[in-house]
Amino acid sequence: MTPVPSIDPRTGATVEVVAAETTTAEVDERCRAAARAAEALEAMGRTGRATLLGALADALEAARDDIVAVADRETGLGTTRLAGELTRTGYQLRLFADVLRDGGYLEATVDHAGDTPMGARPDLRRMLVPIGPVAVFGASNFPLAFSVPGGDTASALAAGCPVVIKAHGSHPATSQLCFDVLSAAAGKAGAPDGTLAMVHGLRAGADLVAHPAIRAVGFTGSTPGARALLAVIEQRSDPIPFYGELSSLNPVIVTRAACADRGSRIGAELVAAFTLGAGQFCTKPGLAFVPAGPDGDEVMAAMHAAVAATTPMVMLNEGIAAAYERGTARLGAVGGLTPEARGAAGDDAGFRGTPLLLSADAADLPPEATDECFGPVAVVARYRDDAELVAALEGLPASLTATVQRGPGETELPAELSRRLRPRAGRLIYDGYPTGVAVSWAQHHGGPWPATNTQHTSVGTSAIRRFLRPVTWQNAPEEILPDELRDGFTAVPRRVDGALRPAG
Amino acid sequence: MTPVPSIDPRTGATVEVVAAETTTAEVDERCRAAARAAEALEAMGRTGRATLLGALADALEAARDDIVAVADRETGLGTTRLAGELTRTGYQLRLFADVLRDGGYLEATVDHAGDTPMGARPDLRRMLVPIGPVAVFGASNFPLAFSVPGGDTASALAAGCPVVIKAHGSHPATSQLCFDVLSAAAGKAGAPDGTLAMVHGLRAGADLVAHPAIRAVGFTGSTPGARALLAVIEQRSDPIPFYGELSSLNPVIVTRAACADRGSRIGAELVAAFTLGAGQFCTKPGLAFVPAGPDGDEVMAAMHAAVAATTPMVMLNEGIAAAYERGTARLGAVGGLTPEARGAAGDDAGFRGTPLLLSADAADLPPEATDECFGPVAVVARYRDDAELVAALEGLPASLTATVQRGPGETELPAELSRRLRPRAGRLIYDGYPTGVAVSWAQHHGGPWPATNTQHTSVGTSAIRRFLRPVTWQNAPEEILPDELRDGFTAVPRRVDGALRPAG
Repeated sequence: MTPVPSIDPRTGATVEVVAAETTTAEVDERCRAAARAAEALEAMGRTGRATLLGALADALEAARDDIVAVADRETGLGTTRLAGELTRTGYQLRLFADVLRDGGYLEATVDHAGDTPMGARPDLRRMLVPIGPVAVFGASNFPLAFSVPGGDTASALAAGCPVVIKAHGSHPATSQLCFDVLSAAAGKAGAPDGTLAMVHGLRAGADLVAHPAIRAVGFTGSTPGARALLAVIEQRSDPIPFYGELSSLNPVIVTRAACADRGSRIGAELVAAFTLGAGQFCTKPGLAFVPAGPDGDEVMAAMHAAVAATTPMVMLNEGIAAAYERGTARLGAVGGLTPEARGAAGDDAGFRGTPLLLSADAADLPPEATDECFGPVAVVARYRDDAELVAALEGLPASLTATVQRGPGETELPAELSRRLRPRAGRLIYDGYPTGVAVSWAQHHGGPWPATNTQHTSVGTSAIRRFLRPVTWQNAPEEILPDELRDGFTAVPRRVDGALRPAG
Repeated sequence: MTPVPSIDPRTGATVEVVAAETTTAEVDERCRAAARAAEALEAMGRTGRATLLGALADALEAARDDIVAVADRETGLGTTRLAGELTRTGYQLRLFADVLRDGGYLEATVDHAGDTPMGARPDLRRMLVPIGPVAVFGASNFPLAFSVPGGDTASALAAGCPVVIKAHGSHPATSQLCFDVLSAAAGKAGAPDGTLAMVHGLRAGADLVAHPAIRAVGFTGSTPGARALLAVIEQRSDPIPFYGELSSLNPVIVTRAACADRGSRIGAELVAAFTLGAGQFCTKPGLAFVPAGPDGDEVMAAMHAAVAATTPMVMLNEGIAAAYERGTARLGAVGGLTPEARGAAGDDAGFRGTPLLLSADAADLPPEATDECFGPVAVVARYRDDAELVAALEGLPASLTATVQRGPGETELPAELSRRLRPRAGRLIYDGYPTGVAVSWAQHHGGPWPATNTQHTSVGTSAIRRFLRPVTWQNAPEEILPDELRDGFTAVPRRVDGALRPAG
């Protein structure tokens, strides 16, 4: 029995033992229960599951004070930020309830039998159906928004898929508390037993993705972690989809006109963005392009001042703090990277990282400058002219986001930059910062490898698509068709004989 | 220089050398040209690409007689079938033109800035954009519908992606002719150079999926072939999506009531279905469940007669004919599989396979009976009662399709069967056969592994989704946004602030 400890990152002390690591036999039992729950969860229907999601949101909010306190103790992220995360999670659950009531996500499509230039066509009706039990891997950095509660769990349940969560070892007590709250609420709301389960431990995570009952995986974490799980999936007799949100540099480009307009404000904002949550955001801007010479000096001066005003920041766990220490030491030793500013000394108990700013020549960016380094560190690439800037973009890896800070009314250069950045990012941001990822219909949190390994999003309403698969019924008797595909059903948007019809 | 021969499968003779295998340097050059073409192809817009697709359809049809003659000589599939394939391909190209004009495939979504319970939300606008150059692997069995012309090429071009096709070695002359026709038409229609390219040879195929410019792969073929290409993709520094349509058993269930109603008709139809195109359909019904005893005997008698009336069928190439020979010999030696009927002797020049029917006990189905064997062979599993039938379904691998032949007005058992079959198939067919795959809005040609490795279809309008990826613009100036996301644009369906709005 391997104990799962809850550790306070502010002190490094173990506060309690939360659970034992889940055994292979226990993983098997929970996955089987999830498989048994699938049909009844789907049978709750869109309305039933919408009510369920609302009940989950209510229950989390009713336990807000306890959850936030435990999460703060375990992550050091602070109660304000964590309370915001919990609000976000409630909002997200209710937004997916709206998605269910709307029904457009089903992509219901009806082609009646008829003649075509290819000959007679049978009656064909297509709709998305739940993919089956989903494994969700909680992330360390958002204990309430990308973990036991979060976008993966919300979207999988909305889709009608039971969820087995791999708790992140960095906040097991928070995971257990949230899981207990959600489980109790799900039971009360009439969800079948097995709708939600949780496992602890790395081995349990591998057992989970290997289990025949698991039909898809939602993952937010490191590329090596993802590669390890993908290797397990490759060994399955039936490889399953793995939706991984992995690694992201999130470049920010500051144009000359933006510098002239508000250089020092941008400098201060950039430091706030890359040190937010101790730089432990997948959307942390890790690389900023700033004009060389006097045009960019105001930005640099503000960055220097803002970094110097920081002190060591609490990091999520010992491993992340150690990796940050190693990573920043390595960056400091790279030829072509110049240390610019470092946070001041201060309380260094527990697991902490001191903010660091480095600079480089955009025309000669060392490869290390474009690797993600998790934590409060960023590189500023100084560019001499727009041609040099544009050329430097060609060498960037893909990211979740790319940002352009432009001058008032400036559009020509931003348009050219957007054209170059679009193949390298899932979200293009103007005159803002990438850190916030609003939950909405139009959100996309994804991007080409290494940002993710999928064409889907993990934030926003279309995240539900990951946990659905299409089925077409051909010449099916009406009694066998799902309601949404029967003639005369008009409560969801459908495409009928090629024409889109909103719900009526 | 390795020559690429065109072989007549009716005789086994090499008729001509079509080309040399494409070298690594040539693959590189064609992929770079595809990358250079991407922006201009996208810039043609939905209307421009709709016109392009129509021009491609017209050009193929104008060359119909030549194309059908070469394809018949190279595949032995017969001119009627091949003419139908060409009609299908023209229809498909024009249907994708409709998809472009409709614009719903873009999933255009606008969330205006506003307040939410999470605080202020920025302006977010999401749309699907082309993923970049696509590699298409032509299949051997549909030289005009899943090859150089076909669903992958049509959907990728519709999406705005240049296409580099790996010609199938089984019909290189057909591939070359179709490619020449399509290339000339694309140029005339104003498509940029590099929009279409083709390569020959296995090595060239591996080079293609390894090439940095290639952003996605569409593949129809064998599971080992797919695994080999997936291994190449795993070695990329940026793994790309691989959409594989692989292997499918396509079970057909004949209920007792169906037997009573039309047993001998079903028997004859089943044989027609599994020998269609010499059984070289991904939707070939390879396993049929028929009641044991007198209830199913009429089906069996008709199958016996129909199989006995066949003679050796021309197969696509030497490798497929040899694999069929080995596969049927192996099946004949499996304990629990009883040979029932075999085609008569006849012309056996070239590459041929003799139809074969075997039977088994549904309660004790040997694993070999559920492996796909390409060619005109099928297994009938006899079931004693409905419980035995339902139990046997639990052991089936997933397929592209599953079919229920039911009695007049019978719904209770078909509903129960459908419930069991849905997790194991992408399309459920009633009182028909799976072989035909109509191109339409509601079609789904996919299914869980081993049928495919994706949640997407390779036939039907939603096949376009494979070659698109979402991008979200945050607080973008109007001038930078794509037309379809600008305020006031109403020519495509959009979701605005959560509400679906048809094109107006």
